[in-house]
Amino acid sequence: MRIPVGVETTSIHVRVGYVDTDQGGVMHHSTYLRYLEMARVEYLRAHGIDYANFELKQRLALPVVEANLRYKLPTRFDDVLEIKTWVALVNRAKLQFDSVILRGANLTTMASITLCCIHAGDGRICSMPTALLALAPARV
Amino acid sequence: MRIPVGVETTSIHVRVGYVDTDQGGVMHHSTYLRYLEMARVEYLRAHGIDYANFELKQRLALPVVEANLRYKLPTRFDDVLEIKTWVALVNRAKLQFDSVILRGANLTTMASITLCCIHAGDGRICSMPTALLALAPARV
Amino acid sequence: MRIPVGVETTSIHVRVGYVDTDQGGVMHHSTYLRYLEMARVEYLRAHGIDYANFELKQRLALPVVEANLRYKLPTRFDDVLEIKTWVALVNRAKLQFDSVILRGANLTTMASITLCCIHAGDGRICSMPTALLALAPARV
Amino acid sequence: MRIPVGVETTSIHVRVGYVDTDQGGVMHHSTYLRYLEMARVEYLRAHGIDYANFELKQRLALPVVEANLRYKLPTRFDDVLEIKTWVALVNRAKLQFDSVILRGANLTTMASITLCCIHAGDGRICSMPTALLALAPARV
Repeated sequence: MRIPVGVETTSIHVRVGYVDTDQGGVMHHSTYLRYLEMARVEYLRAHGIDYANFELKQRLALPVVEANLRYKLPTRFDDVLEIKTWVALVNRAKLQFDSVILRGANLTTMASITLCCIHAGDGRICSMPTALLALAPARV
Repeated sequence: MRIPVGVETTSIHVRVGYVDTDQGGVMHHSTYLRYLEMARVEYLRAHGIDYANFELKQRLALPVVEANLRYKLPTRFDDVLEIKTWVALVNRAKLQFDSVILRGANLTTMASITLCCIHAGDGRICSMPTALLALAPARV
Repeated sequence: MRIPVGVETTSIHVRVGYVDTDQGGVMHHSTYLRYLEMARVEYLRAHGIDYANFELKQRLALPVVEANLRYKLPTRFDDVLEIKTWVALVNRAKLQFDSVILRGANLTTMASITLCCIHAGDGRICSMPTALLALAPARV
Repeated sequence: MRIPVGVETTSIHVRVGYVDTDQGGVMHHSTYLRYLEMARVEYLRAHGIDYANFELKQRLALPVVEANLRYKLPTRFDDVLEIKTWVALVNRAKLQFDSVILRGANLTTMASITLCCIHAGDGRICSMPTALLALAPARV
């Protein structure tokens, strides 16, 4: 995975907690999903979308329908990680966020998370709203 | 903490997962709350209360208002633990579950978790319903 | 994903905990990795490999290098899920477990988790040991 | 719980994640232990003790032996919480951190977490080292 040329990325920094480690002495592979979710929430905020309000006011939700992760290097307790996130694709059916997780200059993990849009009430799938379609990456 | 004479207990057995461990090589202290919650759900089921239905149909919920845990012995990946749970106290204001967590004959942890009852809609505190008051431990 | 013809599967059953849910009212997408890990540990046990002992005695570990999940249907608090797991591929470099997660007859999630083998001491990659190579699926 | 007069506190700020919520629409009671642990690590760092190095170089660890939490107000997704932490007591046998968790001016949770000191190798209890004894709160 490469960050596409010209794409806009948003970064968050997190510090690996003790609770995030396992007896192998590294961050457990499931914890990355926590940090990737935080990164998506901050990406949306940086683009004018407050996700808490989005769910509450639009009565819509964005559940994960696909998650693909490649773990390249282990990360450890107290490491500071940068999670760099961008929209790889968005259309009426889905919204795909790609991320790289870096420790300094080292790529530790690559991830691709795909969301769909549903009505919060009954869970029926609906079209991605305009505010999210506007996140489409620029064609180069 | 002693199991009071004459009290009725319900046990569940769980196996410590790899994800539950931390780099200290033992189960992380936060995970016990997961297993204690499972134990309360099964205690209620064993006493005729399906908690999923309780929330859905009664429109009530039982949030935790107090948690007290004493960790006596560490537990490790793949350990099978018995969580023995009983109602220590119930009145209109609160419902207290006590538990001991055992690995074989060894007491590893003691816990006391207190719940109150709220309306699921607006979160206002309400009286403990009759079905839960009926869990009161027998006076000896 | 189809379960390949002739492949040997192992199933575990888990009950979705309250802690596993999120405010969307469904099991959070990260929790599946917990249950998939439990499924792999039980798969190995059913095939004569005690993973706790494996790490301790062989001084080897099997970290996750790739995780791919497709979420088809949401699952909810107190649902009983069956996680059916098999070895899709094993060679000297990697061991891939595939799983389907079922609620009754309904497929809720498909997952493919790839592990490599490392020395527990220094984290260097090593060849998959014979005991794990023996898990290779039968050629049909 | 009151913050004792003259005591030195350290604060961290965290944002409640979506994964931290449960179907009751609030942060799950177990997640507070994650944030309290982060607060202790930062308290120690602010007082010159890098806990990652402490475990690695001193070959000591500080497991939790007691946790007491009182939940006063629920907290929700995307809330920013302040965790204000201080050393309530330290002696050769134990180190007790007290914390209040605030959302703005509102007290949401009070917690008291007690640690002991063990040898990382064999888990035997040992005396709290001088660097930690030095965290003793000033007598007023």
